[in-house]
Amino acid sequence: MPELAPRTVEHSRSSVVRLTLPTDANFMGNVFGGAILAEIDRVAYITATRHSGLNVVTASFDRVDFERPVHVGQVLAFDAHLTFVGRSSMEVAIEVHAEALHGGPKYRVVRAWVTMVAVDPNGGPVPVRPLRLARKVEREEFEAGRQRMEERRRHRPGPVATAVPN
Amino acid sequence: MPELAPRTVEHSRSSVVRLTLPTDANFMGNVFGGAILAEIDRVAYITATRHSGLNVVTASFDRVDFERPVHVGQVLAFDAHLTFVGRSSMEVAIEVHAEALHGGPKYRVVRAWVTMVAVDPNGGPVPVRPLRLARKVEREEFEAGRQRMEERRRHRPGPVATAVPN
Amino acid sequence: MPELAPRTVEHSRSSVVRLTLPTDANFMGNVFGGAILAEIDRVAYITATRHSGLNVVTASFDRVDFERPVHVGQVLAFDAHLTFVGRSSMEVAIEVHAEALHGGPKYRVVRAWVTMVAVDPNGGPVPVRPLRLARKVEREEFEAGRQRMEERRRHRPGPVATAVPN
Amino acid sequence: MPELAPRTVEHSRSSVVRLTLPTDANFMGNVFGGAILAEIDRVAYITATRHSGLNVVTASFDRVDFERPVHVGQVLAFDAHLTFVGRSSMEVAIEVHAEALHGGPKYRVVRAWVTMVAVDPNGGPVPVRPLRLARKVEREEFEAGRQRMEERRRHRPGPVATAVPN
Amino acid sequence: MPELAPRTVEHSRSSVVRLTLPTDANFMGNVFGGAILAEIDRVAYITATRHSGLNVVTASFDRVDFERPVHVGQVLAFDAHLTFVGRSSMEVAIEVHAEALHGGPKYRVVRAWVTMVAVDPNGGPVPVRPLRLARKVEREEFEAGRQRMEERRRHRPGPVATAVPN
Amino acid sequence: MPELAPRTVEHSRSSVVRLTLPTDANFMGNVFGGAILAEIDRVAYITATRHSGLNVVTASFDRVDFERPVHVGQVLAFDAHLTFVGRSSMEVAIEVHAEALHGGPKYRVVRAWVTMVAVDPNGGPVPVRPLRLARKVEREEFEAGRQRMEERRRHRPGPVATAVPN
Repeated sequence: MPELAPRTVEHSRSSVVRLTLPTDANFMGNVFGGAILAEIDRVAYITATRHSGLNVVTASFDRVDFERPVHVGQVLAFDAHLTFVGRSSMEVAIEVHAEALHGGPKYRVVRAWVTMVAVDPNGGPVPVRPLRLARKVEREEFEAGRQRMEERRRHRPGPVATAVPN
Repeated sequence: MPELAPRTVEHSRSSVVRLTLPTDANFMGNVFGGAILAEIDRVAYITATRHSGLNVVTASFDRVDFERPVHVGQVLAFDAHLTFVGRSSMEVAIEVHAEALHGGPKYRVVRAWVTMVAVDPNGGPVPVRPLRLARKVEREEFEAGRQRMEERRRHRPGPVATAVPN
Repeated sequence: MPELAPRTVEHSRSSVVRLTLPTDANFMGNVFGGAILAEIDRVAYITATRHSGLNVVTASFDRVDFERPVHVGQVLAFDAHLTFVGRSSMEVAIEVHAEALHGGPKYRVVRAWVTMVAVDPNGGPVPVRPLRLARKVEREEFEAGRQRMEERRRHRPGPVATAVPN
Repeated sequence: MPELAPRTVEHSRSSVVRLTLPTDANFMGNVFGGAILAEIDRVAYITATRHSGLNVVTASFDRVDFERPVHVGQVLAFDAHLTFVGRSSMEVAIEVHAEALHGGPKYRVVRAWVTMVAVDPNGGPVPVRPLRLARKVEREEFEAGRQRMEERRRHRPGPVATAVPN
Repeated sequence: MPELAPRTVEHSRSSVVRLTLPTDANFMGNVFGGAILAEIDRVAYITATRHSGLNVVTASFDRVDFERPVHVGQVLAFDAHLTFVGRSSMEVAIEVHAEALHGGPKYRVVRAWVTMVAVDPNGGPVPVRPLRLARKVEREEFEAGRQRMEERRRHRPGPVATAVPN
Repeated sequence: MPELAPRTVEHSRSSVVRLTLPTDANFMGNVFGGAILAEIDRVAYITATRHSGLNVVTASFDRVDFERPVHVGQVLAFDAHLTFVGRSSMEVAIEVHAEALHGGPKYRVVRAWVTMVAVDPNGGPVPVRPLRLARKVEREEFEAGRQRMEERRRHRPGPVATAVPN
């Protein structure tokens, strides 16, 4: 099945630099954490779609700590790559750094692991092509991603618990 | 210090109903998880600011599972309230339900716990007024929130680990 | 015809709290009246669609007075409910209050009555389910709404007057 | 006082043609009435500011009837001009026509009268320069506008009625 | 073929006045040149579609010099008209003037020539109706436009050069 | 003067991948050329600011040919780097490629040369740090950029011609 030929981590690696806009910030000039999460999700979506060539949806965000505040007038750099690929799920690691446009140090703002799932038009899971691991660090990340995935499965609320009576 | 008089959970409870827009969705009509997180963050920001009357920033999102997909043409309802208030941090619980505008059942999409911190102009933490607990369920939620906060502190990456050399 | 079973006023009551954004305001920091009207229309659209389960369009806005100015940095709260339901038209009453995020009084900004009409794909009117009136105040509002509707019909420009030669 | 030299109606006449965007419409392709009102308000703001050279805010919208629906893919043309200028208030008349981009007739969608008031930084009214009336039709519109203004004053809810206890 | 009856320059002349918004500007208050080009493209699109009644895409922008900076708080006026119509291409000339809302001189910011092409659903060129030239200045502009079009053809990179190996 | 120490081409190289959104496209699904130019300008702004650490404004866009159409549902990749730095002007070269998210070839859409100028708060030109050229291709690009800059100067409309009487 040629559509399921493996692809490398490099194939789908994606980067975005983005100006923070006034609409991203509150009135003290602090950029909303949610605006950063929205951009993280878009980059994860691009990464997972580039790898799979399929329609993907976000399944989960691991816990996210905003390590340092971001101010309007900074540039944010988002770097995303796949760490783990299961049967139909893909884990994308994203690092976000902030940089003052007019000089000064660059620092990390947030680090996130987003799980995307390939789905068919009815929302059911679809198998995705494997990840070809080319380097030692990629194999280590893959194993760490596999363990996180199992951890997520153990703590995911069961389908019954999330049902809402109509 | 009258600014630090306690306020009830009800005082800052906030609700938003919001149409999903084409710009919130990918080209299969699935609403981006990140668009939902961005709205969650805005509602949490409103809730924490209403309680504290102070400038607040997002410190963390607990792990978020997207339980069911959201499609363009649905309405999302966001309900947020404070569960726990520490010295300068506030935990906001948010439930999001999706509803087809033209009928059909309403179901839960996502449940999130967001931690906001009150800050001064230099970004340092500022004490916030206490939460006045009026009902048994509020006291139970407060205790659960306190335990989550301690759990977060244990697993937060230390400040040294997040420093980035310039 | 089960689709036309009555629904209560409560069934479609809708609330939105919304941060004013820099893009909502002119360069003196005054929020545009039109930005507020756009949000009023969206809440009225949600309310009328929740009641009817049908496609609805805006037929008219009654005269709107902006009672007090709104400044960037305030939160706007929109509360909408149905007051009157005719054969295919629905009157939605909306009250908008402004609140300074960092404390201070909450005050009413604007009060609006918007008429929505349920339409078929060709834009023709479609019958909507009745409103079940549960309380005395709802019956009083219904009667007042009925009178406003008749008043509107008397003063609506006839279809001939609005035709534009091609 | 040279700032208060009269200006003609032509001086501040303003036109906008604008594509309807997917974000302006609901999921049946009907453009939201509120999106049209928001644009009307912006054109009225430009017109009143061009005339007065002062900071202006929206005081009221007269009743607005949406005469015909607007669909995504049409172009909207907004034509605004001053009809009446009082001590600190200005009435702007706006006509909106819709036009299918790929041909077909142009028709009027809505006609609105918006009252703008020139304000100082504290929100208090400020005198505006007079309107120089150059043609008979302008004098007739001015008189009609003056009568509408008096009508509005008679029906405006008094300041006491709109006060909201904190 | 009645669809190809000529139309005058006046038929498709289009004007837009537009407030500059905070999202159009960098953090020094300078409006982005790209925000102005995006609006120029939209006005050119409206103009070419009004003339042709066909689906059009942008083929090229001639060199654009930003003659003077634009600041947030100014109004931009875009005036567009057709200068030349070939078999399937149309040249639109756009002048943009900036005006301080609170008075002061109006000055030209930029002048652009945009070439639009009418296309079928597969992107192939489609013949457009001729331009009816009514005045001497229109005939002079048409001839100048025809020469610019020939100049563009001479310097357009050939299709081979732009191919990218998959 | 340490602020004017040279920086390499790599220091300010910037990349953006970006989903095309429904609001970027007309109703046939063709992405507006102007939406692409707006993004090109933002990337050029980031690149020139990263190099200079100064406030920069767009001085000109060289002629831009849209080589191939872009459709909604594609990802655009923008790659920008400095080619030439003069006393206060910087030339940024940008290549834009389109890629179907669900597979298929990647192709170049547009290639642009944007000139940015560093300015002081009054809009006057400010000297920028030199470009350190590290490779042969960079020296060749620098020389080509210098020639384009001279060409632009020869054809720039003089300041008298662009003045507009008030």
